[in-house]
Amino acid sequence: MTVKQLSLPELTGACARLGIGQVGLWREPVRSYGLRATARLVRETGLTVTTLCRGGFLTAVDPAERARALDDNRRAVDEAVTLGTDTLVLVSGGLPDGSKDLRGARERVADALAELGPYAERHGVRLAIEPLHPMFAADRCVVSTLAQALDLAERFPARQVGVAVDTYHVWWDDRAPQQIARAGATGRIHAFQLADWTTPLPEGVLNGRGQIGDGAIDMREWKTYVDAAGYTGPIEVELFNDALWARDGREVLAETAARFAAHAAD
Amino acid sequence: MTVKQLSLPELTGACARLGIGQVGLWREPVRSYGLRATARLVRETGLTVTTLCRGGFLTAVDPAERARALDDNRRAVDEAVTLGTDTLVLVSGGLPDGSKDLRGARERVADALAELGPYAERHGVRLAIEPLHPMFAADRCVVSTLAQALDLAERFPARQVGVAVDTYHVWWDDRAPQQIARAGATGRIHAFQLADWTTPLPEGVLNGRGQIGDGAIDMREWKTYVDAAGYTGPIEVELFNDALWARDGREVLAETAARFAAHAAD
Repeated sequence: MTVKQLSLPELTGACARLGIGQVGLWREPVRSYGLRATARLVRETGLTVTTLCRGGFLTAVDPAERARALDDNRRAVDEAVTLGTDTLVLVSGGLPDGSKDLRGARERVADALAELGPYAERHGVRLAIEPLHPMFAADRCVVSTLAQALDLAERFPARQVGVAVDTYHVWWDDRAPQQIARAGATGRIHAFQLADWTTPLPEGVLNGRGQIGDGAIDMREWKTYVDAAGYTGPIEVELFNDALWARDGREVLAETAARFAAHAAD
Repeated sequence: MTVKQLSLPELTGACARLGIGQVGLWREPVRSYGLRATARLVRETGLTVTTLCRGGFLTAVDPAERARALDDNRRAVDEAVTLGTDTLVLVSGGLPDGSKDLRGARERVADALAELGPYAERHGVRLAIEPLHPMFAADRCVVSTLAQALDLAERFPARQVGVAVDTYHVWWDDRAPQQIARAGATGRIHAFQLADWTTPLPEGVLNGRGQIGDGAIDMREWKTYVDAAGYTGPIEVELFNDALWARDGREVLAETAARFAAHAAD
């Protein structure tokens, strides 16, 4: 998604040239290019898929809407299998229209996980609940902190449900370091993503994630926390940024790799 | 600030006509109208001043800048005394330019409170640390949760330092209800403010606070929490909203009073 201006063949080619061996994919471009074609493309380029983004949106009250969401998440698990990744990232969903019941919405996420977790496990896929920054609590994700995400995840086996740690969403939270340790202790850090916090935020606040090193977040500090928690998986850089999307995608990918090396690599 | 399009005489006149007996003031309009003239105006209208907003911005590293901030906060205490309010609301300030050290910035707020608390107490004024929504952590307020605000406040006597609870900033936080109880137990709820959460957020996110009843927050639920915590002080409505500011101020004030009655009054 960081370089969504690239087609999948352009992306995989650019990764190969930069020596990047792993890539996180989003469902929409995969669907556009074709699921099996994408799986073949990444396999032939020698890439592995770190995570598939994203399932979730599990807060509907309406039974038909809820059934559609569960169906869609089972499809997302199937897609992850085809792409060869064992991790599906979940964005929980916001409040239903007109609702003021955050607690109820969070509980419906738990109910959905009880249905999706066993399905995912049967297919060898782990679900990663991604807490989103509290500024998204109303319209995108009622799970706002790592502590909330772990409270949900720990109702299920770690091989079914864990969390995604994204610096952009948790950097402000003084409890996040201890929650990363908590997640690591039960093997629940299923994904680790980097994005920097830059201001001013754009209208709608979705597409203002800063390039690594441009903002307020000490990436190496957060890497230290996940390292100390025993995490040895891939590190993704996930930027939603209109200015980056407007530039040449290969240049942005090369810049991102260089920033990663400068600010987050060992 | 909710109706900053009104002059202070227009504001006090409109409050009198609506039967509103208390008003929270901001320093800038008070300074423009004149401190003593404002104090006389509110007294003659029979209004009392609930809080003065705002002191704070205490995170500077540079000694000269820090000294200027402390001076300004002592002036704010003096202004509160002249206006006849016992509560000065503090917005802590963001990260200094280029800094990524949230923890250090929070510690400098504590250092500043150690200097300002005794000064305020000698003048009969209480400082109210206002945690701002985490989306302001970088550029406006490094204190993002009620728990963080109380961790700071509890280093000092409650008659010196407490917290301001604003629904807009804490509504997403599942720990906030228990933190309100914690604040009440030590007499540290020094202000209670209402604003609703509406989306999409505007560019810069500052001026998108929703009119009571327009958004995702159950005002009566939060009033129940402060009631249960023993809070019996005034309830302020503080909206920063370009659309409300563009309308007739008297109409907005009347609407706000009606919304308050519908969504928050007993």
